[in-house]
Amino acid sequence: MLIEEIFQEIDQRKDEMIQHRRHIHHNAEVSFKEKETADYIVNYYKGKDVEVTKNMEGYGLRVLIDSGKAGKTIALRADFDALPIQEETGLDFASKNPGVMHACGHDAHTAYLMVLADILLEKKDQLKGKIVIIHQHAEEAPPGGAEQMIEAGVLDGVDNVFGIHVMSAMDFGSIQYHKGNTQTGRAKFTIKFQGKGGHGSMPHQANDSIVAASYFVTVLQTIISRRLSPFENGVVTIGSFAGEGSFNIIKDSVTVMGDVRAMADETKDKIEAEVKRIAKGVGLTFNMDVDIDYVNDYPVLYNDPAMTQLVVDAITEAKIPGVVDISDGGPQPPSEDFSYYAAERPSCFFYVGAHKEDAPYPHHHPKFDIREDAMVIAAKAMAAVSLKYLLED
Amino acid sequence: MLIEEIFQEIDQRKDEMIQHRRHIHHNAEVSFKEKETADYIVNYYKGKDVEVTKNMEGYGLRVLIDSGKAGKTIALRADFDALPIQEETGLDFASKNPGVMHACGHDAHTAYLMVLADILLEKKDQLKGKIVIIHQHAEEAPPGGAEQMIEAGVLDGVDNVFGIHVMSAMDFGSIQYHKGNTQTGRAKFTIKFQGKGGHGSMPHQANDSIVAASYFVTVLQTIISRRLSPFENGVVTIGSFAGEGSFNIIKDSVTVMGDVRAMADETKDKIEAEVKRIAKGVGLTFNMDVDIDYVNDYPVLYNDPAMTQLVVDAITEAKIPGVVDISDGGPQPPSEDFSYYAAERPSCFFYVGAHKEDAPYPHHHPKFDIREDAMVIAAKAMAAVSLKYLLED
Amino acid sequence: MLIEEIFQEIDQRKDEMIQHRRHIHHNAEVSFKEKETADYIVNYYKGKDVEVTKNMEGYGLRVLIDSGKAGKTIALRADFDALPIQEETGLDFASKNPGVMHACGHDAHTAYLMVLADILLEKKDQLKGKIVIIHQHAEEAPPGGAEQMIEAGVLDGVDNVFGIHVMSAMDFGSIQYHKGNTQTGRAKFTIKFQGKGGHGSMPHQANDSIVAASYFVTVLQTIISRRLSPFENGVVTIGSFAGEGSFNIIKDSVTVMGDVRAMADETKDKIEAEVKRIAKGVGLTFNMDVDIDYVNDYPVLYNDPAMTQLVVDAITEAKIPGVVDISDGGPQPPSEDFSYYAAERPSCFFYVGAHKEDAPYPHHHPKFDIREDAMVIAAKAMAAVSLKYLLED
Amino acid sequence: MLIEEIFQEIDQRKDEMIQHRRHIHHNAEVSFKEKETADYIVNYYKGKDVEVTKNMEGYGLRVLIDSGKAGKTIALRADFDALPIQEETGLDFASKNPGVMHACGHDAHTAYLMVLADILLEKKDQLKGKIVIIHQHAEEAPPGGAEQMIEAGVLDGVDNVFGIHVMSAMDFGSIQYHKGNTQTGRAKFTIKFQGKGGHGSMPHQANDSIVAASYFVTVLQTIISRRLSPFENGVVTIGSFAGEGSFNIIKDSVTVMGDVRAMADETKDKIEAEVKRIAKGVGLTFNMDVDIDYVNDYPVLYNDPAMTQLVVDAITEAKIPGVVDISDGGPQPPSEDFSYYAAERPSCFFYVGAHKEDAPYPHHHPKFDIREDAMVIAAKAMAAVSLKYLLED
Repeated sequence: MLIEEIFQEIDQRKDEMIQHRRHIHHNAEVSFKEKETADYIVNYYKGKDVEVTKNMEGYGLRVLIDSGKAGKTIALRADFDALPIQEETGLDFASKNPGVMHACGHDAHTAYLMVLADILLEKKDQLKGKIVIIHQHAEEAPPGGAEQMIEAGVLDGVDNVFGIHVMSAMDFGSIQYHKGNTQTGRAKFTIKFQGKGGHGSMPHQANDSIVAASYFVTVLQTIISRRLSPFENGVVTIGSFAGEGSFNIIKDSVTVMGDVRAMADETKDKIEAEVKRIAKGVGLTFNMDVDIDYVNDYPVLYNDPAMTQLVVDAITEAKIPGVVDISDGGPQPPSEDFSYYAAERPSCFFYVGAHKEDAPYPHHHPKFDIREDAMVIAAKAMAAVSLKYLLED
Repeated sequence: MLIEEIFQEIDQRKDEMIQHRRHIHHNAEVSFKEKETADYIVNYYKGKDVEVTKNMEGYGLRVLIDSGKAGKTIALRADFDALPIQEETGLDFASKNPGVMHACGHDAHTAYLMVLADILLEKKDQLKGKIVIIHQHAEEAPPGGAEQMIEAGVLDGVDNVFGIHVMSAMDFGSIQYHKGNTQTGRAKFTIKFQGKGGHGSMPHQANDSIVAASYFVTVLQTIISRRLSPFENGVVTIGSFAGEGSFNIIKDSVTVMGDVRAMADETKDKIEAEVKRIAKGVGLTFNMDVDIDYVNDYPVLYNDPAMTQLVVDAITEAKIPGVVDISDGGPQPPSEDFSYYAAERPSCFFYVGAHKEDAPYPHHHPKFDIREDAMVIAAKAMAAVSLKYLLED
Repeated sequence: MLIEEIFQEIDQRKDEMIQHRRHIHHNAEVSFKEKETADYIVNYYKGKDVEVTKNMEGYGLRVLIDSGKAGKTIALRADFDALPIQEETGLDFASKNPGVMHACGHDAHTAYLMVLADILLEKKDQLKGKIVIIHQHAEEAPPGGAEQMIEAGVLDGVDNVFGIHVMSAMDFGSIQYHKGNTQTGRAKFTIKFQGKGGHGSMPHQANDSIVAASYFVTVLQTIISRRLSPFENGVVTIGSFAGEGSFNIIKDSVTVMGDVRAMADETKDKIEAEVKRIAKGVGLTFNMDVDIDYVNDYPVLYNDPAMTQLVVDAITEAKIPGVVDISDGGPQPPSEDFSYYAAERPSCFFYVGAHKEDAPYPHHHPKFDIREDAMVIAAKAMAAVSLKYLLED
Repeated sequence: MLIEEIFQEIDQRKDEMIQHRRHIHHNAEVSFKEKETADYIVNYYKGKDVEVTKNMEGYGLRVLIDSGKAGKTIALRADFDALPIQEETGLDFASKNPGVMHACGHDAHTAYLMVLADILLEKKDQLKGKIVIIHQHAEEAPPGGAEQMIEAGVLDGVDNVFGIHVMSAMDFGSIQYHKGNTQTGRAKFTIKFQGKGGHGSMPHQANDSIVAASYFVTVLQTIISRRLSPFENGVVTIGSFAGEGSFNIIKDSVTVMGDVRAMADETKDKIEAEVKRIAKGVGLTFNMDVDIDYVNDYPVLYNDPAMTQLVVDAITEAKIPGVVDISDGGPQPPSEDFSYYAAERPSCFFYVGAHKEDAPYPHHHPKFDIREDAMVIAAKAMAAVSLKYLLED
């Protein structure tokens, strides 16, 4: 059977996957600066029977595998950017670039998908339709590579998109999914309270921006506590309160920055309206000018129920060796720019357990690491999805 | 000498003063309802060679003593209303009226002044000019009797006004004064935050007025802490937060009531502007309608420096027996509607110590009491002031 | 077929249901005072071949129908208390008792179950096992009748419990359910901040309890906004802030009352710990004594997945005329003391649409009403559940 | 007359004063680094019949002028440090040192006193007792030079101390003083709220220090608004809230810095107790560790009534040309380390108007400047004080 052949190939090329992953890890580049990583990928496809489109509004690549037969077009997506974090893993292949690290597993995403793409290419005569491999740049930093690549046409002709994230906290051998709203949408804002400086001993001649901004932070808590239904999911975090100064000088202005998450677009909209009205209200309350810069970035990631069921069925039926559990893992708090694809096409984004016992660190941690054979599981899962998608129906 | 004769008369009529005070105390009546007290006073003056004007926009009385000779006109003021407090003194002559009590010493003010007026009347041939006795109603409750009596003409022809307050916390034998701004001006406000009620489990369908009013109370603290100079004197108190309800019903509206004190009219104005702007700002912040009712009542009591010096000199020179100390006691936080007279004529309001060892209770306390011979000191002090005022220069 | 016979009987006895409902509605009695309602129910069962246990720690009744054959024991529960609300429906059968009203549909619950019980009794030879009818008092008021009746043994010998709530906002013809945590658990608390009273102009001699309680309300908002996961469901409402007073007197103490809802017991526990720590923290911050009375009442209502699936299957298979939709309606914010049964036995509580076009009012509204033939649907649904439960497997 | 001779000398040496002032201004040095300024002063006294003590725990100098006759010892104090401010006056003699500027008038203090010292030295045969000239370093930065010089013995043998501050906002020709508490005492504090960092989307796994510190700032307002008498003077300013970070990372800790002013030592003590208790209370409220570093620096500056009267009388009697007004200007909000001398000896610190029409800038402003002939007034005023002090009685 084709699936078994493919699984065998994947097993045989495991070392190659690891080598790719380690190369990318060692040469980590931050979002929007991944030139060498992109070159490495382009080079890999050189001479293969694929159509490569480069520099899709960034270093993102589109790789088209055409079976030559009628059928649907599936897109498989992996991201390849790293984070502005100083690596502390002590690995042989640790990042050579100071302050830059693959601390989220994108190296593994790219590595498994490069090898899987090549295997599917070899088997294309036994397939139908087309496969688009999306090697995406800049997932970690808004506005994100996904939106740019869509703008540049990466989804042209594509029917559905699938993506995987390896997860350091999920057991090896488990695969998790969630139907419907699956990862939060996000917005961020910067608000400046412009008061008037002065001497600490004469508050009446000044207008204290630290006091105004502090009340703003306290009032902001009521958005989640009083404006949302108990069954709505939202977060508003003030991550920055830039009020450093001298102990005896009243600060003339303070700028705060905030992060908004929500599990539904209505919730995002409601929070936006509240943040803006509260900022204006606090401005009036303290007689201050308020500048509000509010930016919506990644939308809520919505997993299409039918595509999600297809993933579940494909993986279940394929009986992937080593997979002991496929289950609904519930929604995830972080945001993901895969959501842009999912907003354009019925799509599914799911998770592959990659827990490494001696590296129990969360994503974005300086000591983050994964179990590398999770790439084998990822490749097999995505192979199973691709075959079911392209051949059945 | 005249002053010595008068002092002797006062000493001889001490029991009569006490009897008047006890009668008034026993028949205590609250502000604007002091009909029987006024009748008692009117009856006292019946048949005497004075001109009595009754019902000056309330139960207030004006009693004119005319020496028949050219000169200035001095007004001496005493108030006669009681408080809505249930007396707990256990005195023989405790108030017979439930929930009404002379807990501020106005009974003593009226008693000493009735007797002093009669003595001055007897000696009028040795005096010059005129004496106006102001028996004032309703000092304790805004808008206050002073403003009403002025409206009704009590100050017509009057040059200057003097008043005394007996003080339970000041030592017997001490007399205190302060030049310039001496007792705070006052305003009060009622603010209603109109939100929307709802079930405690569904805050998103309601608009929680308790939350909005609570933030209002916290922001209000910044008026005193950040808007006033450290050398300005002001107070803003929320005395009432009417938010009683059921534990699981979100309250649709809350009404708060506040009290404002300030030692200067600019400070009062500044506080008024701040309270109003903050209330509107909190309304915008929480998306609520806000009703503001702000009423300025008693102004700052300003003691004219020259009149105050006259008081100090008169008392010092008179060497009143028992008076061991006349000193600048500094300003006093409470408000007094004597301030209305002082706003119209150069005036002075001063304090006579009346501490009673076995009744160490503050004014407005259910067990408040005073040492009754403080009335003798008050009468002598005011006699000394009147004589110096009418006869010198 | 038995189910069809029963459905026919239900249709034939529709008027009787309506008459029971209207009688109970007209004679509405509040929680823990439902003596006449209980008498009415007891009287109904008089002479029937059932075993009635009365006064189970309140006016609650247990009615046992025994098929005489081996089998499981199912319990069907309906509540019969009314609310302290003044009815404004204008119905002919509106409550005759001032300030008391069936504004939540408990009258309909009791009416349909009385008639269904009698029909099942008639058919008992064709059944197996036993049926326990729980006519429960006092659902609306903590501690609630359910806990009392369990204490008194109402679940002795019972394997599983089923209950229905008619819903004024759900379309007629729809039946909704939810597996797992379905209605929130609840706690309530009363917290007293004991400061020190004083005159409004002298805050330094007092300790202002309104200020402390206001800050408490603002800090409390952080429990939901910062202490819960975005996927946890919780609410904390302060429904009462008893701070009424005089504008110029600093209040010596304020008592607040709050309501807590949560969709998981861990969340309830977390909120309890936070409320208590924050109250103590605010006490320390303002140098005040704080009394905390925290009471957990209804737990989270957990619908057993298997029992819920049995309900779904039974209703689906029975093809109840008029039912156009049975679906997962998601969780509900309010709390329900059916949760006590569900904590003791695998159980299911579900909803029957009863929307009445000319009465679009929510539960607990003075004009609340329902479409009465929803009782027919409820009776048939519960009949289907009972038959599937008792006869299959 | 001696005083007239001295006034004449002062007038004649006006240009020299200006030259000293401009030299010191041009070579501005910040507190505790005033080596060259001190050398300049030392050099000035070289060869004169005085006893110079250098390096009194800093660059401060003590210059002793001994009349050789019995009598009291008066100390005259001038400070000579500059501020860390970038000058923007555009003056020819503007500071040559980047970021350092005489923006408070200490250059003028030193210049007038150098010349006056020399004149008094010339006249010493006509004087009695001794004169100690205190050229003080580091007034602007705690712990301040005054405390250090006292520690080093600058007041040994001194009976009383006098000092002058030139004031850019007071009219030229006016001299102001205040008896009793005259400039605020000061404390400062640094408080760290140690929470726990985390991802912005998962607040429940973190403990948000920005939220805790913001509530702290809001609660802090109650110290001035509720804990002080309306007649107490105090200020608490948070001048620094170091909470800068990334928008989507919850900050693990925030450090705030605050400034405390008070017009009485009891008030300072009360504020200190409140700040500490509130910080601890907020720590408990938010379950955070709190580090408090609270430092009392300059005490309240207390002007001895007798010494102040001596100043008033001396200046009044001397009829200094150009002085049109000597009056009680009331207390001043800023703090002054002259207070340390005043705490050790009965002293007086007073103000000389130096308003310059085309430089209407407050002290500590980058464009601050003064009218230079105010130095002449200062020198004459201090000469008058010295003569009255040493020669009378």
